[in-house]
Amino acid sequence: MAATPVTLEPTTLPSLRLSAKYSGLRIDAVRTNATLEAACTWGNTSDGGMNRLTCNNDDKSVRDWFISETKKYGCHHRVDEMGNIFAIRPGQNNNLPPIGLGSHLDTQPTGGKYDGILGVVCGMEVLRVLHANSITTYAPVAIINWTNEEGARFPPAMLCSGVWGGEFTVKYAQGRQDLEGNTLGGELKRIGYMGPTPCSFEANPLLAHFEVHIEQGPILDVAEKPVGIVRGVQSIRWYNVGVQGREAHTGTTPMDRRSDALLGAAKMIVETNRIVTETEVASRGGRATIAVINSSPQSINTIAGKVNIGLDIRAPADSDVGLIEKQCREGFAKICQQHSLEMTFDNFWISPALNFDPTMVECVKQSSSQIGCDIEIVSGAGHDSVYTSRKVPTAMIFVRCKDGVSHHPAEYSRDEDCAAGAEALLGAYLRYDDYIRRSTAKI
Amino acid sequence: MAATPVTLEPTTLPSLRLSAKYSGLRIDAVRTNATLEAACTWGNTSDGGMNRLTCNNDDKSVRDWFISETKKYGCHHRVDEMGNIFAIRPGQNNNLPPIGLGSHLDTQPTGGKYDGILGVVCGMEVLRVLHANSITTYAPVAIINWTNEEGARFPPAMLCSGVWGGEFTVKYAQGRQDLEGNTLGGELKRIGYMGPTPCSFEANPLLAHFEVHIEQGPILDVAEKPVGIVRGVQSIRWYNVGVQGREAHTGTTPMDRRSDALLGAAKMIVETNRIVTETEVASRGGRATIAVINSSPQSINTIAGKVNIGLDIRAPADSDVGLIEKQCREGFAKICQQHSLEMTFDNFWISPALNFDPTMVECVKQSSSQIGCDIEIVSGAGHDSVYTSRKVPTAMIFVRCKDGVSHHPAEYSRDEDCAAGAEALLGAYLRYDDYIRRSTAKI
Repeated sequence: MAATPVTLEPTTLPSLRLSAKYSGLRIDAVRTNATLEAACTWGNTSDGGMNRLTCNNDDKSVRDWFISETKKYGCHHRVDEMGNIFAIRPGQNNNLPPIGLGSHLDTQPTGGKYDGILGVVCGMEVLRVLHANSITTYAPVAIINWTNEEGARFPPAMLCSGVWGGEFTVKYAQGRQDLEGNTLGGELKRIGYMGPTPCSFEANPLLAHFEVHIEQGPILDVAEKPVGIVRGVQSIRWYNVGVQGREAHTGTTPMDRRSDALLGAAKMIVETNRIVTETEVASRGGRATIAVINSSPQSINTIAGKVNIGLDIRAPADSDVGLIEKQCREGFAKICQQHSLEMTFDNFWISPALNFDPTMVECVKQSSSQIGCDIEIVSGAGHDSVYTSRKVPTAMIFVRCKDGVSHHPAEYSRDEDCAAGAEALLGAYLRYDDYIRRSTAKI
Repeated sequence: MAATPVTLEPTTLPSLRLSAKYSGLRIDAVRTNATLEAACTWGNTSDGGMNRLTCNNDDKSVRDWFISETKKYGCHHRVDEMGNIFAIRPGQNNNLPPIGLGSHLDTQPTGGKYDGILGVVCGMEVLRVLHANSITTYAPVAIINWTNEEGARFPPAMLCSGVWGGEFTVKYAQGRQDLEGNTLGGELKRIGYMGPTPCSFEANPLLAHFEVHIEQGPILDVAEKPVGIVRGVQSIRWYNVGVQGREAHTGTTPMDRRSDALLGAAKMIVETNRIVTETEVASRGGRATIAVINSSPQSINTIAGKVNIGLDIRAPADSDVGLIEKQCREGFAKICQQHSLEMTFDNFWISPALNFDPTMVECVKQSSSQIGCDIEIVSGAGHDSVYTSRKVPTAMIFVRCKDGVSHHPAEYSRDEDCAAGAEALLGAYLRYDDYIRRSTAKI
């Protein structure tokens, strides 16, 4: 049965101290790692990585395991029509929706053991600590496995948190197909995970959403810190840029009579890099990348007549993404003029900058500072928390990963770093639960 | 029956004046154009272009027409085992091999009416003038249709002049397949053009080879001259360059911690262009082009880990191609160092600079000067004459084409320019035939 969402009053941040009764709670690194290894029983690969695509038999097995494990700590379960699993441990006030601690158990086809899996495991470790210490929190808590975060089998990514957060319809999401034409809906039914609960915040609300995730970047590794405080997710825009020149023979066409679309595109790639490394946006974390290129006619002795490139621009601030875009448009136009090229510049996707909930971020800060971590990071990548933040206060904790490598079998986080992530989550979550207790008491 | 090749003594170039008896001979522009239109009866397209791939039914029809037309001017025919057709008009000394006037009747799939076809037509117009004026030349003359010059259906290009010139074996060439798996040998048999004559200079020699061809470049168009004297074919080398970086997330990887293979490749493209437009080789006709690029993994949010590019370097002098190569190697290595990339640099094809026969080029110069043309050009592209020059003295005449466009339905040469090409060929060929007469008389 769905609880009712509540509106919380603003609070002053200093009141977020951890209750004395919780101050001795610790996460065990050996046990955390054992849980992680258990979660990787199905779909692991000989190179130390994982290949557990959404709704394959390994995904069914790990879901069964997740339900059976969380039952041991007093949880009942809701499975929604997108296969999202909510393992709910009751609190003192079960009229409140649960506080969610979520991430995902699916992986890339050549992925690692940490991306997503660590977030679910950290939630499970929080459960164990509550259970071992006979703690009944104020609000209920839900450890969540979001379906198909990677989107590797059923694009796009973050599909089922997206349905819950109102970005996609159930019909669209259930109809997504893999390369063999199997639908996500059909595969959810096949493995027995198309549940009866409607998939939406409105029908199945949360009070808030915390997520632990590996950083997937090098900041913490360079800083030698186990965890980081995620302030939000950077602004992202994607573009298709088309460059039209004139095909001509490489042997007979003088250099000064060419409209070489590939030369123009190459200059655009170099100019894009210059903008984000040499202009003012560089110091504000601006990033721009061209990683997709298609040239035609791909004949060694015919000058390229048509090239398409994919441009990815990111920055913590929307205004900086706009500024980078403006500089690219102007720089590219000059290149086109220089080489007699025509250009199309199409912005096909926008994801505005996202700031996580200040109260929740403060909870993360305080718990992180207790383990000596104070680095704040703006996430460069999307996560399920992007879509939960559309509906409920949300925050994230990043865990250091070696060399910033992810989506690769070499993806690695140390046992003690994984435990530090769980401990930061435990402290942040308990602070927030206390904050809820005090806030609702005032209502 | 094959005639025997002869060794000619050197001659002083001034002796190459046209005999007075030939001085009144002219080519008719209207008739030349009519012949060209007739040659385009089969395989023409609604956009004004041509699509006549080697050994399709249109190619069979134009071959039948070529044989039937040239018979009218006293030719007998040899078809060799690669389908090359030699329409031979006897001379006064039929112990000599014929002087060849050759080019090709096949086209690109979206080609024009002039590339190749004009060369065969010009040879036919020379025949008509000889016939109409009852001239029996000293050596026999052979109008030649070389099979599969374009290589569009059966790669590589210039395949069957290549067999004749010893570059390829008959077995290799007959075994070349189209995209449906049909072999050239099978298709030659199907259309009835796998002839009994062995395909080689040794078995079926020529005395020399003249070729008229559209320029496929803008030099004559800019200079407003109908024909140009081809001094030779420039030096060409082709390379595969592999750039290896490291895949990483575009959103989470700081700009200064990337090994972006596509950024590296883009800088190589820009550097290549800089070398041939801003260094000393620019003034000596050096050209370098990158027109093939393959990037992996082609995902908008994953930095490219591996890129391959195809590099085409050309210059009139082999030494300049070597110099451009050296500068590319050095420049590329610096780019790799700057971006932590690995590089492979593989030279997979070399075609050394080729200088046409000085005596024949002088014949072309003298005949061209009579129509007010004195521009000398180094051919940027390969032609059947590249392979004939391996065995016999060879020269070429270029005809102006609008905007330098070729391999396109818009390819166009004016009627009067086509006739000028035929007239330059007539004068050059008759001068050379006279030179042969005088030379062999001395033997």
